[in-house]
Amino acid sequence: MMNTQLTLDKLLERAENYFPKKEIVSRTVTGIHRFTYAEFGLRTRRLASALEKLGVERGDRVGTLAWNDHRHLEAYFAIPSMGAVLHTINIRLSTEHLTYIINNAEDKVLLIDDGLLPLLEQIKDNIPSVKAFIVLTDEQELPNTSLKPVYHYETLIKEGNANFQFPDDLDENESAGMCYTSATTGNPKGVLYTHRSIVLHSMTVGLVDTLALSESDVAMPVVPMFHVNAWGMPFSAVWFGATQVLPGPNFTPKVLAKLIESEKVTMTAGVPTIWLGLLQEIESGSYDMSSLTRVICGGSAAPKSLIRAYEEKHNIPFLHAYGMTETSPLVTVSRLKSYQQELPYEERLEYRSKQGLLAPGVEAKIVNENGEVPRDGKEMGELLLRGPWITDHYYKEPEKTAEAIRDGWLYTGDIATIDEEGFIKLVDRTKDLVKSGGEWISSVDLENAIMAHEAVFEAAVIAVPHPRWQERPVAAVVLKEDFKGKISKDDILDFISPQFAKWWLPDDVIFIDEIPKTSVGKFLKRELREQLKDHLA
Amino acid sequence: MMNTQLTLDKLLERAENYFPKKEIVSRTVTGIHRFTYAEFGLRTRRLASALEKLGVERGDRVGTLAWNDHRHLEAYFAIPSMGAVLHTINIRLSTEHLTYIINNAEDKVLLIDDGLLPLLEQIKDNIPSVKAFIVLTDEQELPNTSLKPVYHYETLIKEGNANFQFPDDLDENESAGMCYTSATTGNPKGVLYTHRSIVLHSMTVGLVDTLALSESDVAMPVVPMFHVNAWGMPFSAVWFGATQVLPGPNFTPKVLAKLIESEKVTMTAGVPTIWLGLLQEIESGSYDMSSLTRVICGGSAAPKSLIRAYEEKHNIPFLHAYGMTETSPLVTVSRLKSYQQELPYEERLEYRSKQGLLAPGVEAKIVNENGEVPRDGKEMGELLLRGPWITDHYYKEPEKTAEAIRDGWLYTGDIATIDEEGFIKLVDRTKDLVKSGGEWISSVDLENAIMAHEAVFEAAVIAVPHPRWQERPVAAVVLKEDFKGKISKDDILDFISPQFAKWWLPDDVIFIDEIPKTSVGKFLKRELREQLKDHLA
Repeated sequence: MMNTQLTLDKLLERAENYFPKKEIVSRTVTGIHRFTYAEFGLRTRRLASALEKLGVERGDRVGTLAWNDHRHLEAYFAIPSMGAVLHTINIRLSTEHLTYIINNAEDKVLLIDDGLLPLLEQIKDNIPSVKAFIVLTDEQELPNTSLKPVYHYETLIKEGNANFQFPDDLDENESAGMCYTSATTGNPKGVLYTHRSIVLHSMTVGLVDTLALSESDVAMPVVPMFHVNAWGMPFSAVWFGATQVLPGPNFTPKVLAKLIESEKVTMTAGVPTIWLGLLQEIESGSYDMSSLTRVICGGSAAPKSLIRAYEEKHNIPFLHAYGMTETSPLVTVSRLKSYQQELPYEERLEYRSKQGLLAPGVEAKIVNENGEVPRDGKEMGELLLRGPWITDHYYKEPEKTAEAIRDGWLYTGDIATIDEEGFIKLVDRTKDLVKSGGEWISSVDLENAIMAHEAVFEAAVIAVPHPRWQERPVAAVVLKEDFKGKISKDDILDFISPQFAKWWLPDDVIFIDEIPKTSVGKFLKRELREQLKDHLA
Repeated sequence: MMNTQLTLDKLLERAENYFPKKEIVSRTVTGIHRFTYAEFGLRTRRLASALEKLGVERGDRVGTLAWNDHRHLEAYFAIPSMGAVLHTINIRLSTEHLTYIINNAEDKVLLIDDGLLPLLEQIKDNIPSVKAFIVLTDEQELPNTSLKPVYHYETLIKEGNANFQFPDDLDENESAGMCYTSATTGNPKGVLYTHRSIVLHSMTVGLVDTLALSESDVAMPVVPMFHVNAWGMPFSAVWFGATQVLPGPNFTPKVLAKLIESEKVTMTAGVPTIWLGLLQEIESGSYDMSSLTRVICGGSAAPKSLIRAYEEKHNIPFLHAYGMTETSPLVTVSRLKSYQQELPYEERLEYRSKQGLLAPGVEAKIVNENGEVPRDGKEMGELLLRGPWITDHYYKEPEKTAEAIRDGWLYTGDIATIDEEGFIKLVDRTKDLVKSGGEWISSVDLENAIMAHEAVFEAAVIAVPHPRWQERPVAAVVLKEDFKGKISKDDILDFISPQFAKWWLPDDVIFIDEIPKTSVGKFLKRELREQLKDHLA
């Protein structure tokens, strides 16, 4: 068989050749921007030629600090297709981490949304590898900035070569992309994606049994493009010629609801907090959400109550998926098997609130000190992963690599169970698990049970040091506005106690105004643990 | 990213691990056989261990002469997963060709359906590479045969090791399968499939935009498993855990209709002659075909009238696809783009009767002496293909390889057009094209137009030597029983003349009883051409 390489330029070419009329809709600061894949292809080639003129060479890292929009999408294809490495930078990082990763990656050029210039200006003197700053802006003129040398993106595009030809000798194992994990301790760690890993992942995303992305979709990635390539959706969407809706900067639930309605979005993807927010919005307004065939939820476990609310109250199919920066990210999707469709709704919901079945192409093991756990849905172990889109190292981090990747498997740090049907359920992060008197208690199970209470907006359960049991669970609960002051600790404990053994129940329930979160919207339990470390002393 | 190899053992393991309860239904000479993927996995491992005991080593070719059934499916996975090469042999070949390809492939072991023993016995003394014959049979005892040494498949399975572990060092570029083209002239040519090509092809078959094979399907490949791996369906179906229905030996349209009804088949695949036969059956009987979500048709162009009959009269979605032995085979699928769904039915049918859009992963060019043809749907050129599941050589045939593969492209020998939407339409084989006075006439277009006539069962148009125009088209027509003797040459010409320029119309229409066909059901025009070579002299 031909030694054809799996490279990203071919994804772009398919869109140019077969879907030139399909559209990319992008919300920018000045309004809705629309163009076709034909125009997208020409601008992407112009961008590549401009980067080449600026001195970007094969293997160089080019960073982006940008929201989800059409220019970011152009960078997604121009940079890897010319043989450079697309380094998507999390705009919510601290300036220390930002400085660290730009230096660690040795980014040669940075593409920056105009709204994010102040952030970059703070660190500009500490990132010597950067030889050029390109400002992504709708404005005709460059905004005032102390960055230099600085270029206007649209000027570069105008001067670029629309017939730019990508190198024809790209190897599928060359690096194409780079993303740093959002570390809660220590420095972020860099994960490098190859052309091969992204192409294989992109194909998987189009399978009927996973996310089923196809030409007929209007796909809106709400998950940021700086977060694991927006879960790979932009790559698949271009390849398959799907219409794309990119929600731009500083979106609110109202913005998302309006975009879904006006653009007839069929699929969208994001973290649970996004869907909690959207839920409140669609319950308070009146939107037509009937175009949605699936809301994809990942990043953190989706509470069962959230799935139920979307499906039962709003008739919007909700699809739970799981992955991480190290896994490109798609690992599991919680679709029922055909014969499970006949189960009662509650049982189906039980399965679908798990992380689900492994995507074709990925292998998994769940192990604890006794070896692989049985398929009983109960015994917990650490989830290990292997596959062509699972990372085999952290960039320039031999020690952290050796810790996380052993015997060819990625140790995810996620604690999971697996049931008789092969559905994987995450019960905790290794570090968040409550170890009470030698037994393991899942903080996530408790959180989800608490979040099913009608008064609860969100809840986090953490391990708090305990003089007798080493650790005991404590719940931190945020109540919905209408219920504040009306709900007690016992109300919460009474509500969840039928579902758990007595020794699983939290020792205390405290009510707070907000759960601290990471830059990508995950609960930042480390901070809560710090605040409550003497709570049970 | 991990250097995980794309190998077939992982497809089997996914079925074993995640779909052990799903079923494989197999029609055998003694009735319907059912078992689960769990049992299938164990038997497949037993088979691999038995073959190892018989001396099969890494890289050895193991031939199969078998219909579509569960034992053949076991061979599909046991042989490649152990590192050997699955050589599926066309049971309809002449004994000369059979002898030729077994010798050319140097098959070490042959697996043979008991009904095909007489065929093998004729050539047994001329195939010295074969060290063992294994008889695939439902009977307890081995049938009488002059083959030796001969083994009973079920005895080998019984004695095999159900815990057999496949080698863990398979490279994705090792050969996994082999199939010979059904040559109409000269000897058949061998095409080798690699693990990588089959895995990538299997994934493509699961995309929403191609064949959309998924866990929820009940998939019935009617296309033989000795013909381009039954178009890859068995590999994908195992990987995704789809239910499979294998129609066994000597099936009739009635057998197929009954299987579709009783097993609630959702997808099936085969050549146009199969679907013509099934159409007659379901029109004469009363079957419930409502489970079918798509009938996939390839191998030859599907006449528009056939698509229309399935869809308009029977409400069975019909999906046109194209590929060849050299291309694994999937190249195009004729699914409409989303915005084409709004076109009137006739226009949609026009697009859907073309071969369609390229599957993700494959690249194409259509060239004639003027270079690439424009996207006007009119200008004809030869179709060139490139991609990771397109062959780069014929086995042991450097000269034929050099002729067919040039500058990294496979020259398919198919003459095609491409329209503004990128839909590829095959208009002829290079050798069947009618070259009349320096202009090209598509025999396939004429055939399809004639086959739309209500009286016509099938029709072939061939180039016949002509003293003035070099070649002119002549139509050979088979009428339906009820119309025999009631239709004239002029009836046919009058019917098609509105669709063609006058100089395209056949110089003659002759009525015959049957169109000669190749072993895989394609029109054997060479024979007609030979018979009619002096017809216009």
